[in-house]
Amino acid sequence: MPQNATNRLVLKRLGIDTYQEPVVYMRADCHVCRSEGFTAHSRVLITTGSASIIATLNVVRDGLLDEGEAGLSDAAWRLLDAKTGDTATFSHPSPVDSMSALRAKIFGHSFAAHDLDGILADIAAGRYTDIALAAFLTACAAGGMSLDEVVALTRGMVDVGARLSWPRPVIADKHCVGGLPGNRTSPLVVSIVAAAGVWIPKTSSRAITSPSGTADAMETLTNVDLDLDTMRRVVERENGCIAWGRAVRLSPVDDVLIRVERALDIDSDAQLVASVLSKKVAAGSTHVVIDIPVGPTAKVRSINAAERLEHLLERVGRQMGLQLQAVVTDGTQPIGHGMGPALEARDVLAVATGAPGAPVDLRKRTVRLAGELLEMVGACADDEGQATAAAILDDGRAWKKLQAICEAQGGMRTPPVAAHRHEVTAPRAGQVAAIDNRVLARIAKLAGAPASPASGIDLHVRLGALVHAGQPLFTIHGQTPGELAYAREYLLGHPGAVTIGEAP
Amino acid sequence: MPQNATNRLVLKRLGIDTYQEPVVYMRADCHVCRSEGFTAHSRVLITTGSASIIATLNVVRDGLLDEGEAGLSDAAWRLLDAKTGDTATFSHPSPVDSMSALRAKIFGHSFAAHDLDGILADIAAGRYTDIALAAFLTACAAGGMSLDEVVALTRGMVDVGARLSWPRPVIADKHCVGGLPGNRTSPLVVSIVAAAGVWIPKTSSRAITSPSGTADAMETLTNVDLDLDTMRRVVERENGCIAWGRAVRLSPVDDVLIRVERALDIDSDAQLVASVLSKKVAAGSTHVVIDIPVGPTAKVRSINAAERLEHLLERVGRQMGLQLQAVVTDGTQPIGHGMGPALEARDVLAVATGAPGAPVDLRKRTVRLAGELLEMVGACADDEGQATAAAILDDGRAWKKLQAICEAQGGMRTPPVAAHRHEVTAPRAGQVAAIDNRVLARIAKLAGAPASPASGIDLHVRLGALVHAGQPLFTIHGQTPGELAYAREYLLGHPGAVTIGEAP
Repeated sequence: MPQNATNRLVLKRLGIDTYQEPVVYMRADCHVCRSEGFTAHSRVLITTGSASIIATLNVVRDGLLDEGEAGLSDAAWRLLDAKTGDTATFSHPSPVDSMSALRAKIFGHSFAAHDLDGILADIAAGRYTDIALAAFLTACAAGGMSLDEVVALTRGMVDVGARLSWPRPVIADKHCVGGLPGNRTSPLVVSIVAAAGVWIPKTSSRAITSPSGTADAMETLTNVDLDLDTMRRVVERENGCIAWGRAVRLSPVDDVLIRVERALDIDSDAQLVASVLSKKVAAGSTHVVIDIPVGPTAKVRSINAAERLEHLLERVGRQMGLQLQAVVTDGTQPIGHGMGPALEARDVLAVATGAPGAPVDLRKRTVRLAGELLEMVGACADDEGQATAAAILDDGRAWKKLQAICEAQGGMRTPPVAAHRHEVTAPRAGQVAAIDNRVLARIAKLAGAPASPASGIDLHVRLGALVHAGQPLFTIHGQTPGELAYAREYLLGHPGAVTIGEAP
Repeated sequence: MPQNATNRLVLKRLGIDTYQEPVVYMRADCHVCRSEGFTAHSRVLITTGSASIIATLNVVRDGLLDEGEAGLSDAAWRLLDAKTGDTATFSHPSPVDSMSALRAKIFGHSFAAHDLDGILADIAAGRYTDIALAAFLTACAAGGMSLDEVVALTRGMVDVGARLSWPRPVIADKHCVGGLPGNRTSPLVVSIVAAAGVWIPKTSSRAITSPSGTADAMETLTNVDLDLDTMRRVVERENGCIAWGRAVRLSPVDDVLIRVERALDIDSDAQLVASVLSKKVAAGSTHVVIDIPVGPTAKVRSINAAERLEHLLERVGRQMGLQLQAVVTDGTQPIGHGMGPALEARDVLAVATGAPGAPVDLRKRTVRLAGELLEMVGACADDEGQATAAAILDDGRAWKKLQAICEAQGGMRTPPVAAHRHEVTAPRAGQVAAIDNRVLARIAKLAGAPASPASGIDLHVRLGALVHAGQPLFTIHGQTPGELAYAREYLLGHPGAVTIGEAP
């Protein structure tokens, strides 16, 4: 590749936020564009003394740039770690060789382990465009993935990131495959298990297709953007933490894939298992409990599907050297009252403090999962897990531990409250016959969750509840009027969030 | 959706070329961003008095925009047909409902006809991001498409575009499924058939995965960017034309899909058949000959695959009311000498004028396809097609017609010649044992084709030729030094473009 003085330009930060996508802006009359043959949407390799990235070219005609300058988007500036006045060379990136394995997969072939290593290395290096990422995820979902492929994908995702090791032989962990709004047990399970003296360094992701992930909810209580050293210090002091997985770079490819999965609203078994287990292995976990909620409008809709997923998790987990216990749970309605980061955090606090009106189902689910984990790691007798967990919750040790963890992570905060609300009431008297998790999640997302942490839904009824006409069913919370209006408009076309049947 | 004075901004053209993607730039402190809850990469509905589009948001921090202004990329400006000083409202677009059918396809369900209508309407309206487009194409390729699905896709693609009708009962057309560099028969077949008095209003696309499409090559000879009225006038005067399909908006979705297919370098049977036949139907064609070149490094690699494609073309063609004849041809090596827009146009001119050294294979292929077409439409007896076509070529009528068509399309040009060349010679004496179409096409593309029309490859040998050490095998042409250097670098790692075996 020609890299000499003639393709060198001075970098300028343009102050344009293109989200995760690195974009470079060059003048149409730029000598580098002309000599290299770059046009709008070309992929451009940018190399400074210390780093190199591949960015997408936007061509600029007007006065944004001086001669000899190239502009960078915020993401490009950050990835290059550029400083004002830095220069860089601009050239064609090498062809992305791993794309041929992707094309073969699209047309029905299987991935070999080295194919997936190559693809993941290229994704980690930023060589995959959004188009290529979407094709990869779609091909994995549509083509199906064998056990070997899922194991190779999982191992590959571990290999491209950092990996933690802990000075303890037993490291506990838990995970929920998601799809059930409000199922925010992690902060509570971590607090109970850590209070029992077991190390549980929990890394969580942000929402994929739900109104909130654990990292989103926990962020309304404390800092979750921990680096590795901070995470270690927190765990050494408190036995547990709740950190955002990406911040510790345990599985850097995962967040890139999640962004595209979120745009497509798809999350296949293979990607789900690889995403979950790669993060568990990278986090140094040895004993893992996985919650699989099942219900007609949960992510996993049938017992059959849950068993397929459980089977895949257990087989891949075994090959990755994990002790793994999957727990199939009730997913017919949301857990707790809140959906959205702050509203879910509020429920967590209520259970932790034993507040009146604390959601019973969230408490029950927490005790069950924490109990399984305590039994698995041998922290109590084989049939005393739930009783032990309940005791730690009831006597205040879990609440004390949650506060201590938040303090260690940077200080405890009060979750924000939304300024704009809209109450949805029962159109007639009757009994709550069905609750559609997907419609509720959609409304919560349209109201701004998870990007707006105070936005979401507060659900006031459970399945089977008797209601009178005009009784509040749920309240939509929006940080902004626009968000609230958008959620309300969607509601007009989708009245089936809560179905009222005849009273018995 | 809230659309009042509070979400209105003045539009400003920022002079940023983002290729086909509409991008809107808004200030981080903009009241519309805040009230609507927009963040970087949000999809934003922009509505003026006369038009509305959906654009991707880039958030701007520095002095690019004044308060109350929103910036637009060139594509967004063009799509909105905006003028300086125009204002627009900014709001959330409706959810893209057709995405749920796409998700179902990804997970193994089939498309119903109305699913595809919905998807194609959303694509035509610009509601699909690159991520969604890539998922759609990948799902179609990986999931497989039934006959019904391909027919529905074809019909749907016709329905979203313009449709021509002609005051003649017989309208001839030809197409090559591609994958064979240099197979540039269309301008010659059109000239012969038009010279025989048969109407052949040919629309062509630009390259998908090859170094040049017919529209790219033809553009070096004349204007191909014809509107419907111009196309009609040309055909009424000369019986034929060679226009760029997208310019006449016959199948507007096709070019959007082709851009993404090109980025992925995939082109599935279903998309290929729908793309080809939708354009034929939309162009008002009644009799169509389709060239399917077969060879180990052509797009279609085996006779089996060719027969599958032929079968699908004929079945879908029949359902769309077309008379269709597929012709399976030799695709073991490139046709003609040139690969790349200008170099292929040069070969076309050589055959049309009967110049010494004109590529024999290009002439032969042209005569065969034109002959089939003349027989199909009844312009000659059933066994006299090839003789008739050859006569029209030999007596200069085809050349006269090609010149007349170019003049009618806006004037004839001389194809450009590249400033930078690199000759690749035989490493030793022997016989040409294999020619890799894909490696040659890749080199031609790296050298800049088709975006740089003079770039490409000039191939000097054929299969079976005896060569001496140091004899030129092919010459790489590059418009810029950067392009040439990049093609040469690739060549170092891929020496197998032309394989020299032992002489017999």
